[in-house]
Amino acid sequence: MSSYSKLKAHFQKIYHFKHLSAIAGWDQATMMPSGGNQARSQALAELSVHIHNMTTEPQLEEWFSSAESEPLSSLESASLREMKREWRQASVLPAKLVQAKAIAGSKCEHAWRTQRGENDWVGFEKNWQSVVALSQEEAQIRGQSQGLSAYDAMLDIYEPGINSAQLDTLFGDTKQWLPELINQIIEHQQARPTLRVSDKPFAIEQQKALGVDVMKLLQFDFERGRLDVSMHPFCGGTAEDLRLTTRYDQNDFTQSLMGIVHETGHARYEQSLPRDLLGLPVAEARSMGIHESQSLFFEMQLGRSADFIPHLSTLAKKHFTEHPSNLFDVDNLLNVYTQVEKGYIRVDADEATYPAHVILRYEIEKDLINGDIKHTDVPELWDLKMQQYLGLSTNGNFKNGCMQDIHWTDGAFGYFPSYTLGAMYAAQFMASMKQTVNVDSAVQSGDLSPVFGWLNDNIWSKGSTLTTDELVKQATGSALNAQFFQDHLKSRYL
Amino acid sequence: MSSYSKLKAHFQKIYHFKHLSAIAGWDQATMMPSGGNQARSQALAELSVHIHNMTTEPQLEEWFSSAESEPLSSLESASLREMKREWRQASVLPAKLVQAKAIAGSKCEHAWRTQRGENDWVGFEKNWQSVVALSQEEAQIRGQSQGLSAYDAMLDIYEPGINSAQLDTLFGDTKQWLPELINQIIEHQQARPTLRVSDKPFAIEQQKALGVDVMKLLQFDFERGRLDVSMHPFCGGTAEDLRLTTRYDQNDFTQSLMGIVHETGHARYEQSLPRDLLGLPVAEARSMGIHESQSLFFEMQLGRSADFIPHLSTLAKKHFTEHPSNLFDVDNLLNVYTQVEKGYIRVDADEATYPAHVILRYEIEKDLINGDIKHTDVPELWDLKMQQYLGLSTNGNFKNGCMQDIHWTDGAFGYFPSYTLGAMYAAQFMASMKQTVNVDSAVQSGDLSPVFGWLNDNIWSKGSTLTTDELVKQATGSALNAQFFQDHLKSRYL
Ligand SMILES: [Zn+2]
Ligand SMILES: [Zn+2]
Repeated sequence: MSSYSKLKAHFQKIYHFKHLSAIAGWDQATMMPSGGNQARSQALAELSVHIHNMTTEPQLEEWFSSAESEPLSSLESASLREMKREWRQASVLPAKLVQAKAIAGSKCEHAWRTQRGENDWVGFEKNWQSVVALSQEEAQIRGQSQGLSAYDAMLDIYEPGINSAQLDTLFGDTKQWLPELINQIIEHQQARPTLRVSDKPFAIEQQKALGVDVMKLLQFDFERGRLDVSMHPFCGGTAEDLRLTTRYDQNDFTQSLMGIVHETGHARYEQSLPRDLLGLPVAEARSMGIHESQSLFFEMQLGRSADFIPHLSTLAKKHFTEHPSNLFDVDNLLNVYTQVEKGYIRVDADEATYPAHVILRYEIEKDLINGDIKHTDVPELWDLKMQQYLGLSTNGNFKNGCMQDIHWTDGAFGYFPSYTLGAMYAAQFMASMKQTVNVDSAVQSGDLSPVFGWLNDNIWSKGSTLTTDELVKQATGSALNAQFFQDHLKSRYL
Repeated sequence: MSSYSKLKAHFQKIYHFKHLSAIAGWDQATMMPSGGNQARSQALAELSVHIHNMTTEPQLEEWFSSAESEPLSSLESASLREMKREWRQASVLPAKLVQAKAIAGSKCEHAWRTQRGENDWVGFEKNWQSVVALSQEEAQIRGQSQGLSAYDAMLDIYEPGINSAQLDTLFGDTKQWLPELINQIIEHQQARPTLRVSDKPFAIEQQKALGVDVMKLLQFDFERGRLDVSMHPFCGGTAEDLRLTTRYDQNDFTQSLMGIVHETGHARYEQSLPRDLLGLPVAEARSMGIHESQSLFFEMQLGRSADFIPHLSTLAKKHFTEHPSNLFDVDNLLNVYTQVEKGYIRVDADEATYPAHVILRYEIEKDLINGDIKHTDVPELWDLKMQQYLGLSTNGNFKNGCMQDIHWTDGAFGYFPSYTLGAMYAAQFMASMKQTVNVDSAVQSGDLSPVFGWLNDNIWSKGSTLTTDELVKQATGSALNAQFFQDHLKSRYL
């Protein structure tokens, strides 16, 4: 048996355990009664140790080095590259550091859940100090092993191939035009009415039926997936059995509904990964940014478009028969779903202001992880940049400032850029798709097969067979370029 | 670290993986969309190999032998005994035999699913031949390792401590009086009306709400468990998070309802196993027979009793408000739930005829596994014994005869006696409980805490700290005795 074959069999085994982790994790978030939590957490922790042990087994190093000199097809070479990447990511850190960071992150997060509400920066900062220090140590070790700067090594976890030089260009360019564009849009939207709420609650059963209908319109495969409820919506499960969740608000159906559209984008990517390769890292989604590009393609490029909203309007009227129907009129839904507002909170931000939140975080976390600033400098920098990009001050307002996100609390530095990379990829994919697909008429007709056909051919079915850069170039003819995103915003909002 | 402590930590690890297996298996039966089946089956098979590997790891033998000379408390000794038992059961068979039997059993079962409907004994027999031969080989190896006869070694898997000499006495005694008693009961019940069906279907939502209410009456802990739907009802999940399932028939609510009572008995046993020991084999349910004694205690001793049925009547009337209420009258439900009839099918059998089905199977499988008869002798023997015990012939009627059960198809020889052992234990527990607990008034009042208190103190909280024989003697003052079961049947049915 060749070393490549041994590696392949080994990673396929790991895949089975990841499957169990995904399903047991989904159950924990959706079905499990509260009393089961301790036993489940212990079981999942044990499984996670097992997966880590398998991914870092000593004999892998030898198999990797001998596989490199074996005759491999280009697909096998890509597969080897992705297995090696997974192994390297898992093996590079000393177990002690991984454990110390997990403990510090968990302690910081636990306290943060109350500290945030109390605007308690001083309390938070004491725990966060360790998370930052351990993340810096992690970043240095990762960087040294790959010849990258500390922060670039963290980026590489989520977005392999991207580096801060590229992001400096993309985001540096964006922040030149974005603040002024936001002002123009807000000016342009002034006095636009939006109707969201009704005296009568939107029953959960009806919201769910509406969500399922929209998922069917988006060709979600219910033979290989489900829609359920969880406190924090996510797209879980496995490529063969996708578990999508949402949360319903009886006073406002619009957020959950668009959340379902977003998660369905993630889900369809997973459901359409190359089936014959499933079980191997090369069959997995390319990166967090490409993943987000698919959910944002569904949400922003399709879901909030003037051609798609009429479908939401028709389906909402079908399911909510006892509410004033003007709530569901196309014009109103279009206004609701394209409203632009400056706000403090990233997760509540709209398409136009979202990148400002991300660029701010990118600039701060890059300097923090590279050791150019201290964690105590963060609140002041946050305030400064919020004023620059969105004209809002967070002076003394920690809970709506640098304490708002869970990501840093846990030490997931390097993750934030994926959101805006995703928005930019999505805009570029749409521009490119429109050169060969009549997107407008497909969306209007309600048969989105041509759109999904393009995504499947160019993105979904590729898995990780290409690097991100190759994937984008093959799909669109050029490397990632923020211009498409800018054009998209201008054409939609001005 | 002592060898005992090493073993303890090792088996606690195994427990975490069994937890994941239970939850992923539950999901497969209740939630999983059909397209997820292949990936799930592969993942569960991989996990099962992992659990087997952990249970048979080479260093365990050394740990066991040195633990035996370590100073252990009596609880630790019991714990060691149960760990060793699990290890021995898993280690004794050559991997090749286990695999061959699994393949033969799965092939035989798969074909049986169509062959049974077609009454195709000839086709079935060809596959079954291998299952029997491999089971005989398994039984011999197991027997040799423990100094037991082949069949007794199979019994030991499900009912440790019991042997065929004891069963010959128990069942030999029972078959002296049972056939005549059945005749007397049927004579006695003649012309009794039973009303089960209605023109109007029993809505599943209402059946479920009724089932939940009955589970609450039986003090099922919904903080640590759920009720869902599966094709084949079972009591799954883990002691910390019990997953009970049922199947609803819109034309007849009575079977599903009593099924829920039965499974709740299994569930409460699991939910009440010694919590501080959970994770160790010594905390697990004592045996299949004791497990069944708890479900049958709930179903037969409580559920179908004249004192309990009024609760079912009240709750059914509460939930089914649009049906003729005489359906739910106490007298009618009592008639429905205590009807005795001779029939071909074990799973449809009532409390009085059920042991006849089991004794028949026991006598045949014992001779078959011990090599005293051939598998081709089975249909004739079946016909003969059905005539003796129930006055029914299965000549040529294979599908309602020896082809009716999945157990033999899979090679689970030695399992059938557990059902009737369970019924006998249950009757003996009730007789003993009545000496110190006012069962009648507790059941009448609807607060069954005194009943469950006795079960908890004497059975549930013991886990596997005692041998089955010790458990029964400590709880009831004597070894298992079929007299209690006979007395119970006479007092209920004559
Ligand atoms: Zn997303
Ligand atoms: Zn049972």
